[in-house]
Amino acid sequence: MIDIDQHTITQAVLAAQRKSPSPRLAQVMAGLVRHLHAFAREVELTEEEWFEGIRFLTRAGQLTDDKRQEFILLSDVLGLSTLVTAQNNAKPPGCTEATVFGPFFVDGAPRVEAGADIANGAKGMPCDVSGQVRGIDGSRIAGAVIDVWQSDEDGLYDLQHAGGSKIQARAQLVSDADGRYRFRSILASCYAIPHDGPVGDLLRGLGRHPWRPAHLHFKIEARGYERLITHVFRDEDPYLESDAVFGVRSSLLAKWVKHPATATEVEHHSLAFDFVLNPVGASAKP
Amino acid sequence: MIDIDQHTITQAVLAAQRKSPSPRLAQVMAGLVRHLHAFAREVELTEEEWFEGIRFLTRAGQLTDDKRQEFILLSDVLGLSTLVTAQNNAKPPGCTEATVFGPFFVDGAPRVEAGADIANGAKGMPCDVSGQVRGIDGSRIAGAVIDVWQSDEDGLYDLQHAGGSKIQARAQLVSDADGRYRFRSILASCYAIPHDGPVGDLLRGLGRHPWRPAHLHFKIEARGYERLITHVFRDEDPYLESDAVFGVRSSLLAKWVKHPATATEVEHHSLAFDFVLNPVGASAKP
Repeated sequence: MIDIDQHTITQAVLAAQRKSPSPRLAQVMAGLVRHLHAFAREVELTEEEWFEGIRFLTRAGQLTDDKRQEFILLSDVLGLSTLVTAQNNAKPPGCTEATVFGPFFVDGAPRVEAGADIANGAKGMPCDVSGQVRGIDGSRIAGAVIDVWQSDEDGLYDLQHAGGSKIQARAQLVSDADGRYRFRSILASCYAIPHDGPVGDLLRGLGRHPWRPAHLHFKIEARGYERLITHVFRDEDPYLESDAVFGVRSSLLAKWVKHPATATEVEHHSLAFDFVLNPVGASAKP
Repeated sequence: MIDIDQHTITQAVLAAQRKSPSPRLAQVMAGLVRHLHAFAREVELTEEEWFEGIRFLTRAGQLTDDKRQEFILLSDVLGLSTLVTAQNNAKPPGCTEATVFGPFFVDGAPRVEAGADIANGAKGMPCDVSGQVRGIDGSRIAGAVIDVWQSDEDGLYDLQHAGGSKIQARAQLVSDADGRYRFRSILASCYAIPHDGPVGDLLRGLGRHPWRPAHLHFKIEARGYERLITHVFRDEDPYLESDAVFGVRSSLLAKWVKHPATATEVEHHSLAFDFVLNPVGASAKP
Protein backbone atom coordinates (compact mmCIF):
# COMPACT_ATOMS: atom_id res chain seq x y z
CA MET A 1 0.00 0.00 0.00
CA ILE A 2 2.35 2.64 -1.36
CA ASP A 3 1.47 5.59 -3.58
CA ILE A 4 -2.12 5.69 -2.47
CA ASP A 5 -4.05 8.62 -3.93
CA GLN A 6 -7.51 10.13 -3.47
CA HIS A 7 -8.99 7.46 -5.72
CA THR A 8 -7.38 4.36 -4.18
CA ILE A 9 -7.40 5.33 -0.50
CA THR A 10 -10.86 3.94 0.21
CA GLN A 11 -9.99 0.44 -0.95
CA ALA A 12 -6.66 0.66 0.91
CA VAL A 13 -8.41 1.42 4.22
CA LEU A 14 -10.94 -1.36 3.68
CA ALA A 15 -8.14 -3.80 2.81
CA ALA A 16 -6.30 -2.91 6.03
CA GLN A 17 -9.21 -4.11 8.16
CA ARG A 18 -9.76 -7.44 6.43
CA LYS A 19 -8.50 -9.28 9.52
CA SER A 20 -10.89 -7.60 11.94
CA PRO A 21 -11.93 -9.97 14.74
CA SER A 22 -15.33 -8.23 14.81
CA PRO A 23 -17.42 -8.63 11.64
CA ARG A 24 -19.96 -6.04 12.81
CA LEU A 25 -17.33 -3.41 13.69
CA ALA A 26 -15.69 -4.05 10.32
CA GLN A 27 -19.05 -3.62 8.59
CA VAL A 28 -19.88 -0.37 10.41
CA MET A 29 -16.42 1.09 9.85
CA ALA A 30 -16.39 0.07 6.18
CA GLY A 31 -19.65 1.96 5.71
CA LEU A 32 -18.31 4.95 7.66
CA VAL A 33 -15.07 5.09 5.67
CA ARG A 34 -16.83 4.81 2.31
CA HIS A 35 -19.32 7.56 3.12
CA LEU A 36 -16.75 9.80 4.81
CA HIS A 37 -14.51 9.56 1.77
CA ALA A 38 -17.40 10.05 -0.65
CA PHE A 39 -18.33 13.22 1.28
CA ALA A 40 -14.78 14.62 1.11
CA ARG A 41 -14.56 13.88 -2.62
CA GLU A 42 -17.99 15.21 -3.44
CA VAL A 43 -17.54 18.60 -1.74
CA GLU A 44 -13.84 18.71 -2.71
CA LEU A 45 -12.93 19.34 0.91
CA THR A 46 -9.90 21.62 1.20
CA GLU A 47 -7.06 21.22 3.69
CA GLU A 48 -8.18 24.37 5.52
CA GLU A 49 -11.73 23.03 5.78
CA TRP A 50 -10.38 19.70 7.02
CA PHE A 51 -8.45 21.56 9.70
CA GLU A 52 -11.57 23.58 10.57
CA GLY A 53 -13.29 20.23 11.17
CA ILE A 54 -10.43 19.10 13.44
CA ARG A 55 -10.71 22.36 15.39
CA PHE A 56 -14.50 21.92 15.64
CA LEU A 57 -14.17 18.42 17.13
CA THR A 58 -11.36 19.57 19.43
CA ARG A 59 -13.49 22.42 20.80
CA ALA A 60 -16.47 20.09 21.18
CA GLY A 61 -14.27 17.66 23.08
CA GLN A 62 -12.92 20.32 25.38
CA LEU A 63 -16.46 21.50 26.24
CA THR A 64 -17.77 18.00 26.90
CA ASP A 65 -17.78 16.79 30.49
CA ASP A 66 -20.27 15.17 32.85
CA LYS A 67 -22.55 18.22 32.56
CA ARG A 68 -22.21 19.14 28.90
CA GLN A 69 -22.42 16.78 25.94
CA GLU A 70 -21.53 18.68 22.78
CA PHE A 71 -21.27 15.50 20.66
CA ILE A 72 -24.86 14.41 21.37
CA LEU A 73 -25.90 17.97 20.63
CA LEU A 74 -24.08 17.78 17.30
CA SER A 75 -25.76 14.47 16.46
CA ASP A 76 -29.10 16.04 17.40
CA VAL A 77 -28.81 19.15 15.21
CA LEU A 78 -27.53 17.10 12.25
CA GLY A 79 -30.62 14.90 12.44
CA LEU A 80 -28.56 11.76 13.11
CA SER A 81 -30.23 11.22 16.48
CA THR A 82 -33.72 11.37 14.96
CA LEU A 83 -32.69 9.01 12.15
CA VAL A 84 -31.19 6.43 14.54
CA THR A 85 -34.12 6.74 16.95
CA ALA A 86 -36.66 6.31 14.15
CA GLN A 87 -35.02 3.37 12.44
CA ASN A 88 -34.68 1.48 15.74
CA ASN A 89 -38.10 2.20 17.21
CA ALA A 90 -40.68 1.14 14.69
CA LYS A 91 -43.64 0.07 16.81
CA PRO A 92 -47.18 -1.09 16.07
CA PRO A 93 -49.82 1.67 15.81
CA GLY A 94 -51.11 2.54 19.25
CA CYS A 95 -47.73 2.41 20.97
CA THR A 96 -46.21 5.64 22.22
CA GLU A 97 -43.64 6.86 19.73
CA ALA A 98 -39.98 7.35 20.70
CA THR A 99 -37.99 10.49 20.13
CA VAL A 100 -34.44 11.69 20.71
CA PHE A 101 -32.61 11.07 23.99
CA GLY A 102 -30.91 14.47 24.08
CA PRO A 103 -27.79 15.52 26.01
CA PHE A 104 -29.34 16.22 29.44
CA PHE A 105 -30.11 12.81 30.92
CA VAL A 106 -28.34 11.97 34.18
CA ASP A 107 -28.03 8.42 35.43
CA GLY A 108 -29.06 7.77 39.01
CA ALA A 109 -31.64 10.51 39.62
CA PRO A 110 -33.28 10.12 43.04
CA ARG A 111 -36.26 7.78 43.22
CA VAL A 112 -39.36 9.52 44.63
CA GLU A 113 -42.78 8.47 45.90
CA ALA A 114 -45.93 8.92 43.83
CA GLY A 115 -47.15 12.51 44.07
CA ALA A 116 -43.79 13.94 45.12
CA ASP A 117 -42.74 17.44 44.08
CA ILE A 118 -39.65 16.79 41.99
CA ALA A 119 -38.96 20.48 41.21
CA ASN A 120 -36.74 20.74 44.32
CA GLY A 121 -36.65 24.51 43.97
CA ALA A 122 -36.46 24.73 40.17
CA LYS A 123 -38.05 27.96 38.89
CA GLY A 124 -41.45 27.74 37.24
CA MET A 125 -45.20 27.59 37.71
CA PRO A 126 -46.23 24.35 39.44
CA CYS A 127 -47.48 21.58 37.19
CA ASP A 128 -49.07 18.26 38.12
CA VAL A 129 -48.29 15.40 35.78
CA SER A 130 -50.03 12.04 35.84
CA GLY A 131 -50.97 9.14 33.65
CA GLN A 132 -50.83 5.42 33.15
CA VAL A 133 -48.34 2.99 31.65
CA ARG A 134 -50.00 0.25 29.62
CA GLY A 135 -49.07 -2.45 27.16
CA ILE A 136 -50.39 -2.37 23.61
CA ASP A 137 -53.00 -4.98 24.65
CA GLY A 138 -54.37 -2.59 27.29
CA SER A 139 -52.76 -4.34 30.26
CA ARG A 140 -51.69 -2.08 33.09
CA ILE A 141 -47.95 -2.18 33.71
CA ALA A 142 -47.09 -2.08 37.40
CA GLY A 143 -43.52 -1.44 38.52
CA ALA A 144 -42.46 0.42 35.38
CA VAL A 145 -39.38 2.53 36.17
CA ILE A 146 -39.98 6.05 34.89
CA ASP A 147 -37.21 8.63 34.59
CA VAL A 148 -38.39 12.18 34.00
CA TRP A 149 -36.24 15.27 33.36
CA GLN A 150 -36.98 18.78 32.17
CA SER A 151 -35.73 22.36 32.01
CA ASP A 152 -36.90 25.17 34.26
CA GLU A 153 -38.65 28.46 33.51
CA ASP A 154 -35.34 29.93 32.27
CA GLY A 155 -34.92 27.09 29.82
CA LEU A 156 -32.09 25.48 31.77
CA TYR A 157 -31.70 21.95 33.07
CA ASP A 158 -30.32 21.58 36.60
CA LEU A 159 -26.88 20.59 35.35
CA GLN A 160 -26.65 23.75 33.25
CA HIS A 161 -26.77 26.05 36.27
CA ALA A 162 -23.35 27.48 37.11
CA GLY A 163 -21.78 25.42 39.87
CA GLY A 164 -25.09 23.66 40.29
CA SER A 165 -24.85 20.16 41.68
CA LYS A 166 -28.42 20.26 43.00
CA ILE A 167 -30.76 17.81 41.30
CA GLN A 168 -33.88 19.71 40.20
CA ALA A 169 -36.87 18.86 38.01
CA ARG A 170 -35.44 15.38 37.53
CA ALA A 171 -36.44 12.13 39.27
CA GLN A 172 -37.23 8.47 38.96
CA LEU A 173 -40.68 7.06 39.80
CA VAL A 174 -42.28 3.64 39.70
CA SER A 175 -45.78 3.00 38.36
CA ASP A 176 -48.28 1.63 40.91
CA ALA A 177 -50.28 -1.59 40.81
CA ASP A 178 -52.68 0.05 38.39
CA GLY A 179 -49.85 1.24 36.11
CA ARG A 180 -50.40 4.83 37.27
CA TYR A 181 -47.78 7.49 37.96
CA ARG A 182 -48.05 11.07 39.22
CA PHE A 183 -45.72 13.80 40.32
CA ARG A 184 -45.61 17.56 40.72
CA SER A 185 -42.99 19.56 38.90
CA ILE A 186 -42.89 22.86 37.03
CA LEU A 187 -44.32 24.02 33.74
CA ALA A 188 -42.02 23.15 30.83
CA SER A 189 -41.02 26.04 28.61
CA CYS A 190 -39.33 26.31 25.26
CA TYR A 191 -35.58 26.80 25.39
CA ALA A 192 -32.48 27.26 23.29
CA ILE A 193 -30.05 24.34 23.24
CA PRO A 194 -26.55 25.33 24.43
CA HIS A 195 -25.24 27.55 21.66
CA ASP A 196 -22.10 29.09 23.15
CA GLY A 197 -19.93 26.33 21.70
CA PRO A 198 -19.07 24.94 18.26
CA VAL A 199 -22.58 23.55 17.69
CA GLY A 200 -23.99 27.04 18.29
CA ASP A 201 -21.47 28.50 15.85
CA LEU A 202 -22.48 25.88 13.30
CA LEU A 203 -26.19 26.71 13.68
CA ARG A 204 -25.46 30.42 13.22
CA GLY A 205 -23.34 29.67 10.16
CA LEU A 206 -26.23 27.71 8.70
CA GLY A 207 -28.84 30.38 9.48
CA ARG A 208 -30.59 28.06 11.94
CA HIS A 209 -32.05 28.92 15.36
CA PRO A 210 -31.28 26.84 18.50
CA TRP A 211 -34.82 26.64 19.92
CA ARG A 212 -36.73 23.61 21.06
CA PRO A 213 -40.45 23.55 21.87
CA ALA A 214 -41.37 22.97 25.54
CA HIS A 215 -41.32 19.31 26.56
CA LEU A 216 -40.82 16.78 29.33
CA HIS A 217 -38.38 13.90 28.83
CA PHE A 218 -39.39 10.37 29.79
CA LYS A 219 -37.45 7.12 29.86
CA ILE A 220 -39.61 4.14 30.79
CA GLU A 221 -38.40 0.60 31.43
CA ALA A 222 -40.61 -2.35 32.35
CA ARG A 223 -39.91 -6.07 32.31
CA GLY A 224 -41.14 -7.73 29.14
CA TYR A 225 -41.44 -4.44 27.24
CA GLU A 226 -39.17 -2.44 24.97
CA ARG A 227 -37.56 0.54 26.65
CA LEU A 228 -39.27 3.79 25.65
CA ILE A 229 -37.32 7.05 25.43
CA THR A 230 -39.54 9.94 24.45
CA HIS A 231 -40.81 13.48 25.11
CA VAL A 232 -44.24 14.95 25.76
CA PHE A 233 -44.60 18.34 24.02
CA ARG A 234 -46.80 21.33 24.88
CA ASP A 235 -49.25 21.57 22.04
CA GLU A 236 -49.23 25.34 21.65
CA ASP A 237 -45.50 25.96 21.45
CA PRO A 238 -44.24 28.33 18.73
CA TYR A 239 -41.29 26.05 17.94
CA LEU A 240 -43.17 22.83 17.24
CA GLU A 241 -42.65 23.29 13.49
CA SER A 242 -38.96 24.19 13.73
CA ASP A 243 -37.51 22.14 16.58
CA ALA A 244 -33.71 22.56 16.35
CA VAL A 245 -33.27 18.80 16.83
CA PHE A 246 -36.18 17.50 14.70
CA GLY A 247 -37.77 15.61 17.61
CA VAL A 248 -41.47 16.55 17.44
CA ARG A 249 -44.10 13.91 16.70
CA SER A 250 -47.77 14.85 16.61
CA SER A 251 -48.69 11.83 18.72
CA LEU A 252 -46.53 13.29 21.51
CA LEU A 253 -48.33 16.64 21.72
CA ALA A 254 -50.43 17.18 24.84
CA LYS A 255 -52.47 19.91 26.42
CA TRP A 256 -51.20 21.52 29.61
CA VAL A 257 -54.39 22.64 31.43
CA LYS A 258 -54.21 25.87 33.40
CA HIS A 259 -55.88 25.99 36.86
CA PRO A 260 -56.42 29.46 38.40
CA ALA A 261 -55.53 30.01 42.03
CA THR A 262 -58.21 28.98 44.54
CA ALA A 263 -58.48 29.32 48.31
CA THR A 264 -56.53 26.11 48.78
CA GLU A 265 -54.29 25.88 45.72
CA VAL A 266 -51.90 28.23 43.91
CA GLU A 267 -52.19 28.82 40.19
CA HIS A 268 -50.83 25.77 38.42
CA HIS A 269 -51.05 23.57 35.35
CA SER A 270 -51.78 19.92 34.91
CA LEU A 271 -50.87 17.40 32.26
CA ALA A 272 -52.28 13.91 31.76
CA PHE A 273 -50.37 11.57 29.47
CA ASP A 274 -50.53 7.80 29.14
CA PHE A 275 -47.69 5.71 27.75
CA VAL A 276 -48.25 2.56 25.72
CA LEU A 277 -45.30 0.16 25.59
CA ASN A 278 -44.48 -2.49 23.05
CA PRO A 279 -43.80 -6.04 24.29
CA VAL A 280 -40.26 -7.24 23.67
CA GLY A 281 -39.99 -9.06 20.35
CA ALA A 282 -43.10 -7.44 18.86
CA SER A 283 -41.36 -4.63 16.94
CA ALA A 284 -42.50 -3.85 13.45
CA LYS A 285 -39.65 -3.52 10.94
CA PRO A 286 -39.20 0.03 9.71
CA MET B 1 -41.37 19.76 10.31
CA ILE B 2 -43.35 17.40 12.52
CA ASP B 3 -43.44 13.60 12.38
CA ILE B 4 -40.07 13.32 10.71
CA ASP B 5 -38.93 9.74 10.26
CA GLN B 6 -35.76 7.98 9.12
CA HIS B 7 -36.75 8.56 5.50
CA THR B 8 -37.65 12.27 5.69
CA ILE B 9 -35.03 13.49 8.17
CA THR B 10 -32.36 14.22 5.56
CA GLN B 11 -34.56 16.60 3.59
CA ALA B 12 -35.74 18.20 6.86
CA VAL B 13 -32.17 19.01 7.93
CA LEU B 14 -31.30 20.38 4.49
CA ALA B 15 -34.47 22.49 4.49
CA ALA B 16 -33.53 23.96 7.88
CA GLN B 17 -30.30 25.43 6.50
CA ARG B 18 -31.80 27.03 3.40
CA LYS B 19 -31.17 30.49 4.87
CA SER B 20 -27.47 29.92 5.54
CA PRO B 21 -25.43 33.12 5.07
CA SER B 22 -22.51 30.97 3.86
CA PRO B 23 -23.09 29.07 0.60
CA ARG B 24 -19.89 27.05 1.01
CA LEU B 25 -20.66 26.03 4.62
CA ALA B 26 -24.17 25.06 3.52
CA GLN B 27 -22.73 23.00 0.66
CA VAL B 28 -20.20 21.20 2.87
CA MET B 29 -22.76 20.51 5.60
CA ALA B 30 -25.37 19.33 3.09
CA GLY B 31 -22.86 16.82 1.79
CA LEU B 32 -21.90 15.78 5.31
CA VAL B 33 -25.51 15.32 6.40
CA ARG B 34 -26.45 13.31 3.32
CA HIS B 35 -23.48 10.97 3.64
CA LEU B 36 -23.76 10.67 7.44
CA HIS B 37 -27.42 9.72 7.11
CA ALA B 38 -26.74 7.34 4.22
CA PHE B 39 -24.10 5.62 6.39
CA ALA B 40 -26.48 5.21 9.35
CA ARG B 41 -29.20 3.82 7.08
CA GLU B 42 -26.92 1.51 5.16
CA VAL B 43 -25.38 -0.18 8.22
CA GLU B 44 -28.68 0.05 10.14
CA LEU B 45 -26.87 1.73 13.01
CA THR B 46 -28.38 0.72 16.36
CA GLU B 47 -28.95 3.05 19.29
CA GLU B 48 -26.23 1.27 21.29
CA GLU B 49 -23.78 1.68 18.40
CA TRP B 50 -24.73 5.36 18.13
CA PHE B 51 -23.99 5.75 21.82
CA GLU B 52 -20.69 3.89 21.39
CA GLY B 53 -19.82 6.52 18.78
CA ILE B 54 -20.69 9.32 21.20
CA ARG B 55 -18.50 7.72 23.85
CA PHE B 56 -15.68 7.34 21.30
CA LEU B 57 -15.77 11.05 20.42
CA THR B 58 -16.06 12.02 24.08
CA ARG B 59 -12.97 9.98 25.01
CA ALA B 60 -11.09 11.38 22.01
CA GLY B 61 -12.02 14.89 23.13
CA GLN B 62 -10.92 14.31 26.69
CA LEU B 63 -7.52 13.02 25.51
CA THR B 64 -6.93 15.90 23.12
CA ASP B 65 -4.88 18.84 24.36
CA ASP B 66 -1.90 20.85 23.14
CA LYS B 67 0.27 17.72 23.18
CA ARG B 68 -2.12 15.05 21.95
CA GLN B 69 -4.44 15.28 18.94
CA GLU B 70 -6.69 12.23 18.85
CA PHE B 71 -8.96 13.69 16.14
CA ILE B 72 -6.12 14.14 13.63
CA LEU B 73 -5.01 10.62 14.52
CA LEU B 74 -8.55 9.39 13.78
CA SER B 75 -8.61 11.20 10.45
CA ASP B 76 -5.21 9.69 9.65
CA VAL B 77 -6.12 6.05 10.38
CA LEU B 78 -9.43 6.38 8.50
CA GLY B 79 -7.55 7.55 5.40
CA LEU B 80 -9.33 10.91 5.37
CA SER B 81 -6.06 12.81 5.80
CA THR B 82 -4.47 11.05 2.84
CA LEU B 83 -7.57 11.67 0.71
CA VAL B 84 -7.71 15.39 1.53
CA THR B 85 -3.94 15.77 1.11
CA ALA B 86 -3.98 14.01 -2.26
CA GLN B 87 -6.95 15.83 -3.73
CA ASN B 88 -5.50 19.22 -2.78
CA ASN B 89 -1.88 18.66 -3.78
CA ALA B 90 -1.85 17.53 -7.36
CA LYS B 91 1.46 18.84 -8.73
CA PRO B 92 3.29 18.57 -12.04
CA PRO B 93 5.66 15.59 -12.37
CA GLY B 94 9.03 16.45 -10.86
CA CYS B 95 7.64 18.29 -7.85
CA THR B 96 8.07 16.71 -4.44
CA GLU B 97 4.85 14.98 -3.45
CA ALA B 98 2.93 15.95 -0.32
CA THR B 99 1.78 13.58 2.38
CA VAL B 100 -0.17 13.76 5.63
CA PHE B 101 0.46 16.46 8.22
CA GLY B 102 0.03 14.16 11.23
CA PRO B 103 -0.74 15.10 14.83
CA PHE B 104 2.76 16.03 16.06
CA PHE B 105 3.52 19.42 14.50
CA VAL B 106 4.12 22.28 16.92
CA ASP B 107 3.92 25.89 15.85
CA GLY B 108 6.81 28.11 16.79
CA ALA B 109 9.70 25.65 16.92
CA PRO B 110 13.05 27.45 17.50
CA ARG B 111 14.83 28.73 14.40
CA VAL B 112 18.39 27.38 14.12
CA GLU B 113 21.46 28.11 12.02
CA ALA B 114 22.54 25.89 9.15
CA GLY B 115 24.38 22.83 10.45
CA ALA B 116 22.95 23.06 13.97
CA ASP B 117 22.29 19.91 15.99
CA ILE B 118 18.52 20.01 16.50
CA ALA B 119 18.35 16.78 18.54
CA ASN B 120 18.80 18.77 21.75
CA GLY B 121 19.36 15.57 23.70
CA ALA B 122 16.83 13.36 21.91
CA LYS B 123 17.87 9.70 21.98
CA GLY B 124 19.25 8.16 18.80
CA MET B 125 22.27 7.70 16.57
CA PRO B 126 23.42 11.01 15.05
CA CYS B 127 22.25 11.72 11.53
CA ASP B 128 23.27 14.52 9.18
CA VAL B 129 20.54 15.76 6.87
CA SER B 130 21.11 18.08 3.92
CA GLY B 131 19.71 19.01 0.57
CA GLN B 132 18.46 21.78 -1.67
CA VAL B 133 15.12 23.50 -2.20
CA ARG B 134 14.40 24.21 -5.86
CA GLY B 135 11.54 25.26 -8.07
CA ILE B 136 10.22 22.95 -10.76
CA ASP B 137 12.20 25.01 -13.31
CA GLY B 138 15.43 24.21 -11.44
CA SER B 139 15.80 27.62 -9.81
CA ARG B 140 17.36 27.56 -6.36
CA ILE B 141 15.00 28.87 -3.68
CA ALA B 142 16.78 31.00 -1.09
CA GLY B 143 15.03 31.92 2.17
CA ALA B 144 12.63 28.95 2.19
CA VAL B 145 11.37 28.41 5.74
CA ILE B 146 11.78 24.74 6.59
CA ASP B 147 10.13 23.13 9.62
CA VAL B 148 11.42 19.69 10.49
CA TRP B 149 10.14 17.34 13.21
CA GLN B 150 10.70 13.70 14.02
CA SER B 151 10.49 11.01 16.69
CA ASP B 152 13.43 9.68 18.70
CA GLU B 153 14.95 6.22 18.98
CA ASP B 154 12.08 5.13 21.26
CA GLY B 155 9.55 6.19 18.64
CA LEU B 156 8.37 9.21 20.62
CA TYR B 157 8.13 12.86 19.63
CA ASP B 158 9.32 15.38 22.22
CA LEU B 159 5.77 16.32 23.20
CA GLN B 160 4.93 12.68 23.95
CA HIS B 161 7.50 12.43 26.75
CA ALA B 162 5.86 12.52 30.18
CA GLY B 163 6.06 16.04 31.56
CA GLY B 164 8.33 16.94 28.68
CA SER B 165 8.27 20.58 27.68
CA LYS B 166 11.76 20.37 26.14
CA ILE B 167 11.82 20.87 22.38
CA GLN B 168 13.82 18.03 20.84
CA ALA B 169 14.41 16.82 17.28
CA ARG B 170 12.26 19.70 16.03
CA ALA B 171 13.37 23.03 14.55
CA GLN B 172 12.94 25.66 11.87
CA LEU B 173 15.68 26.43 9.33
CA VAL B 174 16.02 28.77 6.38
CA SER B 175 17.59 27.73 3.06
CA ASP B 176 20.74 29.65 2.06
CA ALA B 177 21.43 31.72 -1.05
CA ASP B 178 21.98 28.51 -2.99
CA GLY B 179 18.72 26.96 -1.73
CA ARG B 180 20.66 24.59 0.51
CA TYR B 181 19.80 23.43 4.02
CA ARG B 182 21.60 21.16 6.47
CA PHE B 183 21.24 20.10 10.07
CA ARG B 184 22.25 17.31 12.40
CA SER B 185 19.60 15.33 14.21
CA ILE B 186 19.08 11.67 15.09
CA LEU B 187 18.26 8.62 13.04
CA ALA B 188 14.52 8.27 12.46
CA SER B 189 13.01 4.95 13.51
CA CYS B 190 9.66 3.31 12.93
CA TYR B 191 7.11 3.86 15.68
CA ALA B 192 3.60 3.07 16.80
CA ILE B 193 1.14 5.95 16.73
CA PRO B 194 -0.43 6.62 20.15
CA HIS B 195 -2.69 3.61 20.72
CA ASP B 196 -3.64 3.93 24.38
CA GLY B 197 -6.80 5.85 23.49
CA PRO B 198 -9.96 5.30 21.43
CA VAL B 199 -8.08 5.29 18.11
CA GLY B 200 -5.88 2.47 19.44
CA ASP B 201 -8.96 0.55 20.55
CA LEU B 202 -10.44 1.03 17.09
CA LEU B 203 -7.31 -0.28 15.38
CA ARG B 204 -7.29 -3.36 17.63
CA GLY B 205 -10.98 -3.92 16.95
CA LEU B 206 -10.26 -3.81 13.22
CA GLY B 207 -7.26 -6.14 13.44
CA ARG B 208 -4.92 -3.33 12.36
CA HIS B 209 -1.45 -2.48 13.73
CA PRO B 210 -0.46 1.06 14.76
CA TRP B 211 3.01 1.17 13.15
CA ARG B 212 4.45 3.80 10.86
CA PRO B 213 7.68 3.44 8.87
CA ALA B 214 10.59 5.69 9.94
CA HIS B 215 10.37 9.21 8.53
CA LEU B 216 11.22 12.86 8.93
CA HIS B 217 8.46 15.47 8.66
CA PHE B 218 9.03 18.61 6.59
CA LYS B 219 6.92 21.71 6.10
CA ILE B 220 8.43 24.14 3.58
CA GLU B 221 7.15 27.60 2.77
CA ALA B 222 8.70 29.98 0.22
CA ARG B 223 7.34 33.11 -1.40
CA GLY B 224 5.82 32.44 -4.81
CA TYR B 225 5.55 28.69 -4.21
CA GLU B 226 2.86 26.37 -2.86
CA ARG B 227 3.44 25.25 0.70
CA LEU B 228 4.77 21.69 0.86
CA ILE B 229 3.95 19.38 3.77
CA THR B 230 5.59 16.02 3.41
CA HIS B 231 7.74 13.22 4.88
CA VAL B 232 10.99 11.59 3.82
CA PHE B 233 10.89 7.83 4.54
CA ARG B 234 13.74 5.38 5.21
CA ASP B 235 13.76 3.07 2.23
CA GLU B 236 14.33 -0.19 4.11
CA ASP B 237 11.64 0.07 6.74
CA PRO B 238 9.50 -3.02 7.38
CA TYR B 239 6.30 -0.93 7.62
CA LEU B 240 6.51 0.85 4.27
CA GLU B 241 3.82 -1.43 2.83
CA SER B 242 1.46 -1.18 5.81
CA ASP B 243 1.78 2.38 7.17
CA ALA B 244 -1.05 2.79 9.71
CA VAL B 245 -1.92 6.18 8.19
CA PHE B 246 -1.42 5.39 4.46
CA GLY B 247 1.18 8.14 3.97
CA VAL B 248 3.97 6.42 2.02
CA ARG B 249 4.82 7.53 -1.52
CA SER B 250 7.64 5.85 -3.40
CA SER B 251 9.01 9.23 -4.52
CA LEU B 252 9.57 10.08 -0.84
CA LEU B 253 11.77 7.06 -0.03
CA ALA B 254 15.43 7.86 0.58
CA LYS B 255 18.57 6.04 1.61
CA TRP B 256 20.07 6.76 5.02
CA VAL B 257 23.80 6.11 4.59
CA LYS B 258 25.68 4.62 7.53
CA HIS B 259 29.15 6.00 8.38
CA PRO B 260 31.32 3.92 10.77
CA ALA B 261 33.16 5.64 13.58
CA THR B 262 36.49 7.20 12.65
CA ALA B 263 39.19 8.89 14.68
CA THR B 264 37.37 12.20 14.45
CA GLU B 265 33.68 11.27 14.10
CA VAL B 266 31.31 8.93 15.95
CA GLU B 267 29.23 6.39 14.08
CA HIS B 268 26.43 8.22 12.33
CA HIS B 269 24.12 8.29 9.33
CA SER B 270 23.55 10.82 6.63
CA LEU B 271 20.61 11.61 4.41
CA ALA B 272 20.52 13.83 1.34
CA PHE B 273 17.14 14.91 0.02
CA ASP B 274 16.17 17.74 -2.31
CA PHE B 275 12.74 19.32 -2.38
CA VAL B 276 11.13 20.64 -5.55
CA LEU B 277 8.35 23.18 -5.04
CA ASN B 278 5.49 24.13 -7.33
CA PRO B 279 5.00 27.82 -8.18
CA VAL B 280 1.73 29.28 -6.90
CA GLY B 281 -1.02 28.99 -9.50
CA ALA B 282 0.67 26.16 -11.42
CA SER B 283 -1.18 23.26 -9.78
CA ALA B 284 -2.44 20.46 -11.98
CA LYS B 285 -6.05 19.53 -11.31
CA PRO B 286 -6.40 16.09 -9.73
